[in-house]
Amino acid sequence: MSTTTFKTNPQGQVGRSVSRVESHAKVTGKADYTHNLVLPRMLTGKIFRSTVAHGHIRAIDVSAAAKLPGVHSVVTGQDILRIIPDPYYGPAFHDQPILALGKVHYVGEPVAVVLADDPHIAEEACALIMVDYEELPAVFDEVQAGKSEVIVHERLKPAGTFPDLKHLAGRTNTNIALDFHLKRGDVDKAFAEADHVFEHTFRTQQVMHTPMEPMVSIAEPGHQQITIHTASQSPSFVRIEIARLLGWQENQVRVRTGTLGGGFGAKLYIKLEALVTALALMTRRPVKIALTMEEQFFTITKHASTFRMKTAVRKDGTITGRECEVWWNGGAAADIGPRVTQKSGFTAPGPYDIENVKVDSYAVYTNLPPAGAFRGFGIPQLVWAYESQSDIIARALKMDPVAFRLKNFLRDGRPQATGTIMHEAALHLVLERTASRMNWDQAFERGTGKLRRGRGIGLGFKAVVAPTTSVAMINLSGDGSCIVYSSTVEMGQGSDTAIALMAGEVLGIAAEKIKVSRPDTEVTPYDMATLGSRSTFHMGHAVRLAAEDVLVKLRALADEVGEADSSAANAATLLRKKFGMQAGNVIGVGSFIPAYTPPNYENGQSDNITPNWMVGACGVEVEVDTDTGHVKILRMENVVDCGTPINPKIVETQISGAAIMQIGISMFEEMVFDENGQLRNASFSEYKIPGMQDIPPAMGNEVAQAQQSNGPFGAKGVGESATFGVASALAEAIEDAVGVRLTSMPLKPEAIYRAMAAARGEPLDTP
Amino acid sequence: MSTTTFKTNPQGQVGRSVSRVESHAKVTGKADYTHNLVLPRMLTGKIFRSTVAHGHIRAIDVSAAAKLPGVHSVVTGQDILRIIPDPYYGPAFHDQPILALGKVHYVGEPVAVVLADDPHIAEEACALIMVDYEELPAVFDEVQAGKSEVIVHERLKPAGTFPDLKHLAGRTNTNIALDFHLKRGDVDKAFAEADHVFEHTFRTQQVMHTPMEPMVSIAEPGHQQITIHTASQSPSFVRIEIARLLGWQENQVRVRTGTLGGGFGAKLYIKLEALVTALALMTRRPVKIALTMEEQFFTITKHASTFRMKTAVRKDGTITGRECEVWWNGGAAADIGPRVTQKSGFTAPGPYDIENVKVDSYAVYTNLPPAGAFRGFGIPQLVWAYESQSDIIARALKMDPVAFRLKNFLRDGRPQATGTIMHEAALHLVLERTASRMNWDQAFERGTGKLRRGRGIGLGFKAVVAPTTSVAMINLSGDGSCIVYSSTVEMGQGSDTAIALMAGEVLGIAAEKIKVSRPDTEVTPYDMATLGSRSTFHMGHAVRLAAEDVLVKLRALADEVGEADSSAANAATLLRKKFGMQAGNVIGVGSFIPAYTPPNYENGQSDNITPNWMVGACGVEVEVDTDTGHVKILRMENVVDCGTPINPKIVETQISGAAIMQIGISMFEEMVFDENGQLRNASFSEYKIPGMQDIPPAMGNEVAQAQQSNGPFGAKGVGESATFGVASALAEAIEDAVGVRLTSMPLKPEAIYRAMAAARGEPLDTP
Repeated sequence: MSTTTFKTNPQGQVGRSVSRVESHAKVTGKADYTHNLVLPRMLTGKIFRSTVAHGHIRAIDVSAAAKLPGVHSVVTGQDILRIIPDPYYGPAFHDQPILALGKVHYVGEPVAVVLADDPHIAEEACALIMVDYEELPAVFDEVQAGKSEVIVHERLKPAGTFPDLKHLAGRTNTNIALDFHLKRGDVDKAFAEADHVFEHTFRTQQVMHTPMEPMVSIAEPGHQQITIHTASQSPSFVRIEIARLLGWQENQVRVRTGTLGGGFGAKLYIKLEALVTALALMTRRPVKIALTMEEQFFTITKHASTFRMKTAVRKDGTITGRECEVWWNGGAAADIGPRVTQKSGFTAPGPYDIENVKVDSYAVYTNLPPAGAFRGFGIPQLVWAYESQSDIIARALKMDPVAFRLKNFLRDGRPQATGTIMHEAALHLVLERTASRMNWDQAFERGTGKLRRGRGIGLGFKAVVAPTTSVAMINLSGDGSCIVYSSTVEMGQGSDTAIALMAGEVLGIAAEKIKVSRPDTEVTPYDMATLGSRSTFHMGHAVRLAAEDVLVKLRALADEVGEADSSAANAATLLRKKFGMQAGNVIGVGSFIPAYTPPNYENGQSDNITPNWMVGACGVEVEVDTDTGHVKILRMENVVDCGTPINPKIVETQISGAAIMQIGISMFEEMVFDENGQLRNASFSEYKIPGMQDIPPAMGNEVAQAQQSNGPFGAKGVGESATFGVASALAEAIEDAVGVRLTSMPLKPEAIYRAMAAARGEPLDTP
Repeated sequence: MSTTTFKTNPQGQVGRSVSRVESHAKVTGKADYTHNLVLPRMLTGKIFRSTVAHGHIRAIDVSAAAKLPGVHSVVTGQDILRIIPDPYYGPAFHDQPILALGKVHYVGEPVAVVLADDPHIAEEACALIMVDYEELPAVFDEVQAGKSEVIVHERLKPAGTFPDLKHLAGRTNTNIALDFHLKRGDVDKAFAEADHVFEHTFRTQQVMHTPMEPMVSIAEPGHQQITIHTASQSPSFVRIEIARLLGWQENQVRVRTGTLGGGFGAKLYIKLEALVTALALMTRRPVKIALTMEEQFFTITKHASTFRMKTAVRKDGTITGRECEVWWNGGAAADIGPRVTQKSGFTAPGPYDIENVKVDSYAVYTNLPPAGAFRGFGIPQLVWAYESQSDIIARALKMDPVAFRLKNFLRDGRPQATGTIMHEAALHLVLERTASRMNWDQAFERGTGKLRRGRGIGLGFKAVVAPTTSVAMINLSGDGSCIVYSSTVEMGQGSDTAIALMAGEVLGIAAEKIKVSRPDTEVTPYDMATLGSRSTFHMGHAVRLAAEDVLVKLRALADEVGEADSSAANAATLLRKKFGMQAGNVIGVGSFIPAYTPPNYENGQSDNITPNWMVGACGVEVEVDTDTGHVKILRMENVVDCGTPINPKIVETQISGAAIMQIGISMFEEMVFDENGQLRNASFSEYKIPGMQDIPPAMGNEVAQAQQSNGPFGAKGVGESATFGVASALAEAIEDAVGVRLTSMPLKPEAIYRAMAAARGEPLDTP
């Protein structure tokens, strides 16, 4: 791994609070959202979706739909086969057909598409499509699905891109797409010798990413070329996957992303891109499909999960052993779930120094809408469990929950469950700062009347998905001004600004003077994806290296033309001397992949599982209405370790944004399915997301004074860290206030009310 | 200068006849012509043009036009000043206002623009604009203008980009924008000692480039950004010049070109780009201006010229001295005329080994539409003169015209007029091949009746404009497929295909598998321009260097991952080994500028005036109708030295295309002005260009077996070479047939008829 020491230069770009470079376009309505793109002769597609959770397709009757005036055509899975003979895609498994073939696997699965010039006609025609299904039994619960005889996919088809999934090829008769196992020490011995053993099961629900801009993709056919305009977080992946599906070269597939109206993991890998590509090649016309907000619920979600956690503890509060069994409800497509299962799975025991650990983590197919990456990549589900249990244990042992954590935390230099030595994860500092902001050591008034108050603190950590690659390029033109080329997707996280600051730091140019290009696979180099808080670290390094490459080339140019000053500020002079006029370019390239050693999970001896650890803690004070179970968050304090903040102003909004998003997931967001797998609340009138009224009146965000010495300019990611500790802190604060412990999310008033009633010995009827 | 020896590889790309890579798009109507681009909210501008050749603007009344329903606004030069305080542009002199300010200088000069959603309304409104001019005397003839008291521009304003024009800054009271002088030996002594002295004056007329796609530019405003979509041959220049006009950085100006429907030099530098930029910034809406075919006549033309040539010859036919006085009619804007004057001027004595030469070449302002670069950059005008005189001298000395030329030709190793040593200009071979194809040494039947036949041969040579810069980039993606980034403009000359062949030659990849990007200054690196047959040589080298850079990086990558095979065919494997999956890029950059020593024209000791010489010869057989003067070209043989042809198939069409274009200019194309400077034939019904019937029934094209050892893969340019010899060969053939010598182009039937009548002693009335 290439490392750099933190450096400042006279222009001092890194660490400067800068307004977003794209903000003017956003506030003036000029931002280049894909939804706004209109192409000549463009057809709009409307997706007809499965109405059953599991079934064979006996027949599809599109005749009435096709006859509706204004309809161009109606396309089914059979039609797709003419363009793409093997139309199954997915980042980990090739389990998603472009349109259903033979079988449907969940309510909402795309079965057919109506194409028309007018989207309203397409929608009207959709209602005329008739499908005859032979319904099959379905399975929805992740734990049940693991042992069910109802099989979602007959055969596992690993994508082949991840070598460690290859052994799964051809496995049949199972819903377990991936079983991940990690062992370290001897847990059975730890349990046998423990003073206390705690065992709990924690659950999380299926929720939706809710980007305000729903998915949208447009494919524009050319001669042996396809251009895909798409609201995607992973343009490089889309290019490679579409080329694979078509059997084309990468240079025949162009993927362009505009500004994204949020992503949060929803817009990764293939969503609509394969479908619009097939339709565009079929019709020889541009084809657009834009989802409604409702359709997003059927496209990608956050994994519901069940986490059975068993922990051995000594009298003094030392955790000596922990067994984790995590079931991830992947829905009917693996998407990136197997990676969530594995890459997050290995942190399931938490940031604790535990000699004996065992983790079993399962990616499970069910007949629900697919689940994938969602701000935190599984970590919020895990932290919810292990921090809830931390609080339960501390209460049982009558220890202060902060003290309990500090006692057990992994210290720098100690091996984490995988065997990788902890380094620069500011667990202690972050928790101490959170406690300090909460005045944790001061008396806390809980009240005695109808309204009771409580408080809680939680902390989580996350490895960065590794190893992944980012490439960046910087082009200085004849006047010394420059453009940075990066496939990092600006989706509201401020990446353009951070990239400009980092390039400017090396080049000695003000960030405001630097242009950062939009991702376009025909222009911007490869980047694995914008996900998992990886961009600042990986693309940051790539941009740094590209800028350093520019400096090396400027030095060579200065030597060639006999100038002492080889700075970027003098580039125009150097180029003029070289070329005799304002001409030429200095082009630097930077490519970054962190050092990585293939892990050995069987004996906990993986020495390089991640290039860095991200840490986030949350403290909350709540007020619970004992009559109704209603919770009001009075105060929230979020502290993270992101190393050096590249742009403090945006880092703060990343912290508060992540925490508020997690409030919704913790407290009220929930996709509600009936017993047939029908989603009952696929609209914002029934599915509540956080509003202004849900933001705590007192909210503080802090970056711990830490440093990531192998990071670009001392930085690491921050986009997810403030999601980690929220849910368990809220559950603990509720228990602190009213004495009941919830182990299933969301922490709804009804659940609290029922738990309080049960505690009073007044169980209510099951709803 | 970087040199390479000619190499072939197993894939053998260079020298392979390949169909144009863009041909499918063209024949299916999918080519990306700028005319077809429609942007939301786009306004169309229609230019109101001056109706007088020279005058002060007293008042402009736009009120009636502005009131016409549907008109967005009417803009004059005064309005432009609010956006661009110093709105004068030009590559050599800042002499062209975006819209006229204070004064108009020629009929057709843009004075105002009407903007409307509908171009027809804009056109209708244009007719309602009233301008009150104070008319001034005007000057049209280039020789008269050199000494006239009528001054077109009060003060010379050199652009500053060409250091050798800087001394002209602030010169007043002259129409001579540049006077170029070259001396070598002692011409006066040569004339004094000569056996024969020949003195003639040759004239060429003003003609139009006639690209089938007229000029079109669209500007799209952004926040401190402007994107210009334009049918331009020089996107890099447009970017720099627009940035200069706006006082912006280059990275704020994006210039994109589509496929061009021909250029021929008409679409160089700034044409409509500054105007649409100002209008777009003013209105905050995209603005398109597309010229009609008629308007092209008022935009840019080929220099009319007057060439007085005086030559000293010994009895044996040896040329011992030559004096050249060339007057270039630049019209009312210098455009690139001063460079034509100078860069072509130094070849005015022809490809002959003459001890004593003197060249005086003048770029002159007149009150005609501007003249600029036009396929050959002045060389066809010069060849017309020196080859006409060669024929006249040979006739006078009763020498065979081929023998006369071969006797006097510059041999390899001999200094040309500038002092630069000739090297690899296959003058002898090209002429011998032409003569051989014409069966020159066989008896030729001239006929005796009404129809007489004659034949002629002419040969010209050209230096490549130097020094200029090309930069190219090649990006190999994870599957080893690649894109070549070049700002060379595909305008029908087959550059995309040539670039793919050259990149493929180095990389060992079939040209058909390589994608060549469209010029886009936000993406493709700097290139001086697509002009003067420079791309194959300059961009060819840049592409070669970029590909070689890729190979060097592949070698380093192969070493890093421990692979023996570092070929591009193995790139996918190398990248997969490096990055663990299909990921990453290998990016190579190549930058090329030929070696150059600033010339010394005063003593003919410029040792490096050009990196190569292009040679083209033409032989024709004609049939002249002695009753009407009508000429039919029965046969045409064109032979060029372009070194190794990169794509023989396209080289052949370049040769025939250039020769046919020059037939039109030689025989009938002519912009006819009345005494007030009003163009009388600005339409194809009155201005004839070559049609199918004008193509000689027998036409042969040949590439001489030569090699340009410092060229990429032995190649040099070919786009202009077949224009050189056409005009004089036709004049000679006419004399050979009917005994009259024309010294003014075009060689119209009427002129021939009049000359024949005069020869018979029957002079006709002046028309």
